[in-house]
Amino acid sequence: MGISLWDSYPPKVSDDQLQYLAQTVKDWTIFNGLTVRPNPSIVSEESNPNHVLATNAPVTLYPSPFPKQCFEQAEDLQKVYNELYAAIATDEEWLGEVMKELVEVDDFLANLWKIHLQVKEEGYVQDLSLGMFRSDYMLHVPDDSSSPSLKQVEFNTISSSFGGLAVRVADLHRELATYPDPTHSISYPPHPLFNTATSASITSGGYPPTNEAVDTLASALITAHQSYRDSRTSPPLPQCILFLVQDNERNLFDQMALSQHIRTTNREIPTFRIPTSKILSQTSIPASSENPSRPLIYTHPANPNARYEVTVVYFRALYAPTEYDTPAAWTARHHLERSAAIKCPSILLHLSGSKKVQQVLTSTDPSHLERFLPKTSKETLDSLRASFAPQYSMSEGPDSEGVRIALDPDLAQKHVLKPQREGGGNNIYRSNIPTFLKGISEKEYKQYILMELIQPPSKARNVALRSDGQIVSGDVISELGIFGTCLWRSKVGSQEKNILQNRMGGYLLRTKARDSDEGGVAAGFSSLDSLILYEEAV
Amino acid sequence: MGISLWDSYPPKVSDDQLQYLAQTVKDWTIFNGLTVRPNPSIVSEESNPNHVLATNAPVTLYPSPFPKQCFEQAEDLQKVYNELYAAIATDEEWLGEVMKELVEVDDFLANLWKIHLQVKEEGYVQDLSLGMFRSDYMLHVPDDSSSPSLKQVEFNTISSSFGGLAVRVADLHRELATYPDPTHSISYPPHPLFNTATSASITSGGYPPTNEAVDTLASALITAHQSYRDSRTSPPLPQCILFLVQDNERNLFDQMALSQHIRTTNREIPTFRIPTSKILSQTSIPASSENPSRPLIYTHPANPNARYEVTVVYFRALYAPTEYDTPAAWTARHHLERSAAIKCPSILLHLSGSKKVQQVLTSTDPSHLERFLPKTSKETLDSLRASFAPQYSMSEGPDSEGVRIALDPDLAQKHVLKPQREGGGNNIYRSNIPTFLKGISEKEYKQYILMELIQPPSKARNVALRSDGQIVSGDVISELGIFGTCLWRSKVGSQEKNILQNRMGGYLLRTKARDSDEGGVAAGFSSLDSLILYEEAV
Repeated sequence: MGISLWDSYPPKVSDDQLQYLAQTVKDWTIFNGLTVRPNPSIVSEESNPNHVLATNAPVTLYPSPFPKQCFEQAEDLQKVYNELYAAIATDEEWLGEVMKELVEVDDFLANLWKIHLQVKEEGYVQDLSLGMFRSDYMLHVPDDSSSPSLKQVEFNTISSSFGGLAVRVADLHRELATYPDPTHSISYPPHPLFNTATSASITSGGYPPTNEAVDTLASALITAHQSYRDSRTSPPLPQCILFLVQDNERNLFDQMALSQHIRTTNREIPTFRIPTSKILSQTSIPASSENPSRPLIYTHPANPNARYEVTVVYFRALYAPTEYDTPAAWTARHHLERSAAIKCPSILLHLSGSKKVQQVLTSTDPSHLERFLPKTSKETLDSLRASFAPQYSMSEGPDSEGVRIALDPDLAQKHVLKPQREGGGNNIYRSNIPTFLKGISEKEYKQYILMELIQPPSKARNVALRSDGQIVSGDVISELGIFGTCLWRSKVGSQEKNILQNRMGGYLLRTKARDSDEGGVAAGFSSLDSLILYEEAV
Repeated sequence: MGISLWDSYPPKVSDDQLQYLAQTVKDWTIFNGLTVRPNPSIVSEESNPNHVLATNAPVTLYPSPFPKQCFEQAEDLQKVYNELYAAIATDEEWLGEVMKELVEVDDFLANLWKIHLQVKEEGYVQDLSLGMFRSDYMLHVPDDSSSPSLKQVEFNTISSSFGGLAVRVADLHRELATYPDPTHSISYPPHPLFNTATSASITSGGYPPTNEAVDTLASALITAHQSYRDSRTSPPLPQCILFLVQDNERNLFDQMALSQHIRTTNREIPTFRIPTSKILSQTSIPASSENPSRPLIYTHPANPNARYEVTVVYFRALYAPTEYDTPAAWTARHHLERSAAIKCPSILLHLSGSKKVQQVLTSTDPSHLERFLPKTSKETLDSLRASFAPQYSMSEGPDSEGVRIALDPDLAQKHVLKPQREGGGNNIYRSNIPTFLKGISEKEYKQYILMELIQPPSKARNVALRSDGQIVSGDVISELGIFGTCLWRSKVGSQEKNILQNRMGGYLLRTKARDSDEGGVAAGFSSLDSLILYEEAV
């Protein structure tokens, strides 16, 4: 990435300009539902007893420049990734091998696997699986002279969030960059990146590309709903999609973007929100003796006579270990898994997103990619493999490469130790790794994956408006997510699958301060962003 | 209005149903920008230092039933009212007569009139006037056996607000009444009013009629902008519309609905917001020696090079006496009035909306209506006159009918004493009137108008969600506003006018608790509402 680009980006502005820009963003976000419920550090519970208040989602004031070639590579890979994870989730035997060692050390994964086995024993009654994915990448620039390359951070198979808000951030940045005139923004000072024209050193898209995340994600739910087909209830109940959400969700407007889109485009498909704590009271499955097809029946809390047959359960909850703090949560997950509703995701698909799977995929001996994607060209597989960041197992004994690097203070310096579990947080960085490992027993090593740290562009800068209204600026690191969906039919025990829909569309850029190693947008440490694509002149 | 209707409306719901409904409304409002900035009684300044927080506008949970015939009468009258007030504002001589006695006792009106005279002296340089009106009515039901009739409360000629939010309230109520199915709402229990079918005693529209307020109001600004035509600057600057707003406006999302609509439908027309305190620093008029046509030049605060010629100044500020608390505010008003920008409204139109004018119009000797609307049919004028509430001058001496009623404790019981000035508040009700009048000098009487109190339906009930999240229910009084716009060309001193556009469209229903005599939505005492039209069976 040209140093010249970041030297002048984002453009310098006067205090008046910055205040105007921030005020415009504060008002635009509220008017357009680019919002979150504030967390208690912003407004205390006592000041907000009825939980009516809202604030802007944390957003950058400017889109971040992003190399066009890397963006397009990520887009090109998405449908391949979709198919890869559909194949993994279908290959119960392979997944079982990977899980074998994890279940010994990770209660969370062990319990999920156990539920799968129980439902398998009883017999699955739904052949369709729905994946709503987000593949996350960072730009990797080992040194200033190298071109940036794309490295995958994570592949999300459950609760892939922020599609709804990401679309609005792109709209916001496009509005700021083009109002009142596409070539003369009032909010942004002139800058070559904001012009669609070619400047001396770069060609730029001018403003954020259209973001189709909401359409992509909502369409997946609609197609799955329609594919459920005949009612399994008698007399047939009306059918609906359930959005399974966390109690006290603060990111609900992101989710509403999808349900609202379904209401607009397919009004005949009702969607309802159900919090985790209500799964067992608001849904039921008839006794097998009465109805062996196990339809999931939803009774609406506002009206006991309003009963629906659930076609799809869209998980925006029950993805993190911390959510399973009661036995009822496990009972609820089992209850949903054995139902006839299409799960997004099934437990097998949820497990496929574990970091251990991602690490195993990077091994070249044997190469699992050829196995899962037998019809994919070598060129595409090479591109896929190039997007992997080097990762190492920590379970292959003290002499293995992973353990050796992790315990070496110098080598560890370029690595991160990640727990296998979902949900983010608790990563161990750099020089902390050897110390940390010495504090736990060797048997626990396998709970972790060692990953080479990606080296993002060092000069990237941006300005963000936090949810508490503070404006912060400085060096930043961005993470690109590409959304994709896959609906397929398969039977547990067989590796045959029939893909009904495989789609790519929409992106998320999250940008956080460079001095923070950790970060999740909902936690307020990072901001929603969009991107301006550029090509460096050759 | 049938007692049977109000006995069952709004429908009784369980606590679970009410909570679900309230939560749905809390989330829908934020997601759809049906919002306000909270006032300090909801969140203290210390808890909200950067003013990022927002909350729902106060809204009713159900639309209010409204007789179809009265709604249609109000719609039918709007274009006649538009023309009437355009005629009044054009007849400077007549208006001057009305103002004559007011200027002695009311500094606010006196100062406005003085500015008009100054600009007249210098010579007006803009022939076009734009009115964006809202005519407000209440239903009048003198006793239980009478059919409701429509009585005008006020005709707003400046800052007619809530069109933007009113459209969204209608959308909200329609969504609640028809989701997931037009005949089976999940949010509302079954009720004959929610069905478009005919029940035993009433025929109902089923859900709120489409509200075209935003389109009506935005179109008026667009047409005015386009009618400004040739630039008066050399070299010609780009042109824009200015939204003049109060500093620290909390109702900005209502205003943004209009500017956003213009951005969507007519992107080539820039709109900018300017707070009152910045009029003199951000706008200028070239010296007459340089440019006698007095274009209003706007310099954007974020960019000193971005200069525009203002075609229309849309006043959402400077309507109330309290806003003129500095000499600079008066200077600013004079500055805008003498400019070539089309004012919405001009001072003459602003003054035409004074309560004294409304009172004078009700007098039948002479009848002013025939004078202002010479081409209007007698039938229409009768309908117009029937919409007037009885009003009395307080300036015609101690023996006049108005003063006599006001001082009689029994007769005063059915009346309200209103100050002539704009801005609401400070009305004196019923038995307080004689006491109040005894406390002021007779010379001050003429600052007031005596008006017969309208007797709204006594059994009306509704439930509201306040901006602090509290749910309140009980007896209510509703006020219907109909939006209308008029653009015309006229010269001060001549009564000739040429109407370029005269349009009706959109409504506002505001509903407040019956025990409160005062109320304005922004003050939190009343709620934004929409309506379900019904006809009683004959």
